[in-house]
Amino acid sequence: MTDVIPEQLSDLLERPLLGHLATTRPDGSPQVNPMWFLWDGTHLRFTHTSRRAKFRNVRHEPRVAMSVVDPDHPSRYLEVRGTVESVDDDPTGAFYVALAQRYSRPPNPPADAPDRVVLVVRPESISFQDRR
Amino acid sequence: MTDVIPEQLSDLLERPLLGHLATTRPDGSPQVNPMWFLWDGTHLRFTHTSRRAKFRNVRHEPRVAMSVVDPDHPSRYLEVRGTVESVDDDPTGAFYVALAQRYSRPPNPPADAPDRVVLVVRPESISFQDRR
Repeated sequence: MTDVIPEQLSDLLERPLLGHLATTRPDGSPQVNPMWFLWDGTHLRFTHTSRRAKFRNVRHEPRVAMSVVDPDHPSRYLEVRGTVESVDDDPTGAFYVALAQRYSRPPNPPADAPDRVVLVVRPESISFQDRR
Repeated sequence: MTDVIPEQLSDLLERPLLGHLATTRPDGSPQVNPMWFLWDGTHLRFTHTSRRAKFRNVRHEPRVAMSVVDPDHPSRYLEVRGTVESVDDDPTGAFYVALAQRYSRPPNPPADAPDRVVLVVRPESISFQDRR
């Protein structure tokens, strides 16, 4: 278990909330969009494909940041900064299906399963606000 | 009025939703956190202070990106990429108060009003998903 995430904020990673994952493009400008994620106490995992800009971005700059807000308390949020430690193949889309179940979506493998990958991120630092 | 934002998605900028604003740190890694914003059809405006990391980031790299999700349809989102065109002083916190009203928060000037600034961003491109 990492000690980077304070226990008082770990619910924001354990609940099926959307994380806004920011990467840096090769030209130095930022990119950000909402993503499903799974937190196991040590790594954040995201389903992605090898054919999108974000994949190319993390190949070039593996440092990423994710922002997640408590929908019940909009002034309560967590930013996790970390590094993509590995990119694992997911050729059957099994990890996509696991995330779809977590987010209460139809648990069907995606049409682009052959290109699916798992971005594995180790958190290194955070910023947060914990107002209710 | 800009033609960068499609009309079918403009509600995501008109409603008082949180935008997850990504910037690039001087070391090249991304930074992202939720922010209030105001959209006038041409620019996005954010209240901020001159004493925080994000301010130093945009001085160094004015290109930013913002992600916003439709809370009623979590697969519907908009990423706006753009450039900080100006940073305006807000020494009375008047713009902060306007945003506090938009977001139904107490309309009181913040304690750090003397350091308050307005980040003025011109959108240049978008990415989106419009599933309901």
